[in-house]
Amino acid sequence: MSAEASLNEPLGEALLGGDLTAEQAVLRCLARIEETDGATRSFVSLRADQALAEARARDAGPSLGPLHGVPFAVKDIFDTEDLPTEFNSPMYQGFQPARDAAAVALLRAAGGVFLGKVTTVELASFGALPETRNPHNVEFTPGGSSAGSAAAVGGGEVPLALASQTAGSTIRPASFCGAAGFKPTWGRVPVEGMKPFAPSLDTVGLIAEDSGLLLRAAQACGIVHEAEPPGNRPLRIGFYRTPHYLEAEQETVFALEKTIHLLRSAGHHVEDVIGPPGAERLNDWQDTIMHGEARTSYLAEHARAPALLHPGVRDVVNNALGITFAELREAYDQVAALRPQFDAAMAGFDAWLTPAVPGEPPRFELGNGLATFNRLFTALWLPCVALPGFRGPYGLPVGVQLVAPRFADSHLLDTAQVVEALIGNESDL
Amino acid sequence: MSAEASLNEPLGEALLGGDLTAEQAVLRCLARIEETDGATRSFVSLRADQALAEARARDAGPSLGPLHGVPFAVKDIFDTEDLPTEFNSPMYQGFQPARDAAAVALLRAAGGVFLGKVTTVELASFGALPETRNPHNVEFTPGGSSAGSAAAVGGGEVPLALASQTAGSTIRPASFCGAAGFKPTWGRVPVEGMKPFAPSLDTVGLIAEDSGLLLRAAQACGIVHEAEPPGNRPLRIGFYRTPHYLEAEQETVFALEKTIHLLRSAGHHVEDVIGPPGAERLNDWQDTIMHGEARTSYLAEHARAPALLHPGVRDVVNNALGITFAELREAYDQVAALRPQFDAAMAGFDAWLTPAVPGEPPRFELGNGLATFNRLFTALWLPCVALPGFRGPYGLPVGVQLVAPRFADSHLLDTAQVVEALIGNESDL
Repeated sequence: MSAEASLNEPLGEALLGGDLTAEQAVLRCLARIEETDGATRSFVSLRADQALAEARARDAGPSLGPLHGVPFAVKDIFDTEDLPTEFNSPMYQGFQPARDAAAVALLRAAGGVFLGKVTTVELASFGALPETRNPHNVEFTPGGSSAGSAAAVGGGEVPLALASQTAGSTIRPASFCGAAGFKPTWGRVPVEGMKPFAPSLDTVGLIAEDSGLLLRAAQACGIVHEAEPPGNRPLRIGFYRTPHYLEAEQETVFALEKTIHLLRSAGHHVEDVIGPPGAERLNDWQDTIMHGEARTSYLAEHARAPALLHPGVRDVVNNALGITFAELREAYDQVAALRPQFDAAMAGFDAWLTPAVPGEPPRFELGNGLATFNRLFTALWLPCVALPGFRGPYGLPVGVQLVAPRFADSHLLDTAQVVEALIGNESDL
Repeated sequence: MSAEASLNEPLGEALLGGDLTAEQAVLRCLARIEETDGATRSFVSLRADQALAEARARDAGPSLGPLHGVPFAVKDIFDTEDLPTEFNSPMYQGFQPARDAAAVALLRAAGGVFLGKVTTVELASFGALPETRNPHNVEFTPGGSSAGSAAAVGGGEVPLALASQTAGSTIRPASFCGAAGFKPTWGRVPVEGMKPFAPSLDTVGLIAEDSGLLLRAAQACGIVHEAEPPGNRPLRIGFYRTPHYLEAEQETVFALEKTIHLLRSAGHHVEDVIGPPGAERLNDWQDTIMHGEARTSYLAEHARAPALLHPGVRDVVNNALGITFAELREAYDQVAALRPQFDAAMAGFDAWLTPAVPGEPPRFELGNGLATFNRLFTALWLPCVALPGFRGPYGLPVGVQLVAPRFADSHLLDTAQVVEALIGNESDL
């Protein structure tokens, strides 16, 4: 075991490479939290002593799995058996679940060290925004709803965090905070013990300091390799602007064009793709499904104590938008019909490159940003990765997104590592 | 309040009609449980004293909702905050959740009195069968996986029970036990706190002594009236034999033909329908989706303590059937493409009449029966009702099934009440 790794080296890499003990990794996280969490306001609870004890046990014991000794945080919509789960909701103050959510249990079983809970938009849906701030500039939003997960990872407080995505709640905040984010194929990681919002869209998300750690966390969550890694062969990447490209800001267009240039310069193939027709309505259908299902998801809370629900949540229970069952059926059926068309269009590509976010994060008081470039892919159940490495005019992070066909999760993460290395090698982006 | 209702009158009806107090209803359930549960082995836990106290409070207070004072049981795959939730699994002995499942909370909020937990097939999926017996003859199965829910209601131990359906786990046992069963449209009743098996199929189910009580319980669960009740106008019913009619036994064919005759004699219209082409593969696709998703659902249990999982559950985690992602994608897409076709084919009908089960329940040692006439409708997300009233050559119950388009739940339950009354008026069936 060498001396402590340099501050610039990713914590997970240093730890898993043997340059850092698990105890040192937890201590570094705790020091960083002490230093910056007063500004980012990411963590809502910490189990510092227990995490240190577990880290020492990891250092003394055999490897439990791909996350052996890696500290991780958990978005506060996942049940945890040893810390309260409050959903940033007045209804759940002090609520202590009896058992870990499945994803939490899987990260722990793979050797991860559970460090604490991080903030969320209330119920991860239509509730109050948290006070969490962007770690790169506290005047700006970290994005949502996985605000704490992204701010904590992007701010170097923890190398890995559980998140979730129903519209854009993993990819968007990861992009805003300069972290890597992964939304798996719908259904590929168990959602048991994660607060339901819109069950046909809800997906466990992961936010990490790099895509290598995302892959390890994905493996911990049961995502086995379904294809050979690309190795050194040239990648074939489709550049999919999506039907919403006019909403991309200059910094997003720049990040995409720069990524394409880096890929081509390294010998990879990048081709423009148009995508299946009908995709321009996917965001609307996603919104209809999300509202239609959320109406059911909060019925029990609404029956128990409506006054403790945010007006935005009460509105969705009462179907304030007036969504009809005919509209909901149409949204389900149209999205379902497009899923195989997207898979087919992507066949033969390692991934499609798309915008991750419109641009830099908005100022804090303007909300947590738009999911314009996320809703459609969430509805299609496609695996998505956000890669950091670019900055906009205010010096704030802007990610780019890679998307792959359903169930090509591990191949997407393999591909992402190649792309990430190209972006990372450019020092003056 | 009149004297105690006759033993033949449904308990829920007597209670809600004012012929019985909530306390009397609970006392009658407890007496019946004392009398018969040693044979049916439906209940795994009871909260007799608390239920009596709650019933007295209901009697003394204003109406809380459509289930005011109605005793109900809960399948032991739903979290309950005041009784353990054990899933009939050695892994969860004594497990005490911190909070009620959403459906449990909704039944309670609507005035229902939670009486106790009833047995299930282990994890409601590929695990061990319970020792529960058919209340009409203990040599026969009550069906599964909602074995306890159906046996308790069919045996008169409780008028209402929460169940679930991923293949045929509500409609099949209800039919076998002489109870009414309801599987709502997928997504219409919240599944939070119900053990996930295959999330795109999992549906909260209800089993009750009659379809009037099913409707009240459905209203408690948030199913509002989406259409006018049919009133006294003639119904238009399609007779859909399904692609599997050759597997229907004589008693099922008899029950369907008799139902058609009763309908026509009462002035209702019954027409043969063929159904959309491609439906013959729906059961196989349902099976692929169920296994494909269950592989994910038990990952955390498998990581924690594989030895405490039934070999059948371990097999599904390890994908013993070797289902490929391509097969899973095809199953999703083919089923999704048929959903609007079924809705369109059913337009203009009040419901389709179909077999509920192949025939009478099998003998106990032969397993818990087949879901042949349920899998396809579960995959299509359609609401289904099982109506009792017929018996086979061994004198055991055989139900018939009514199915409606997605989201026509309340209209289906209204229609079911008309059909149920016709069947019930025949004394010599």
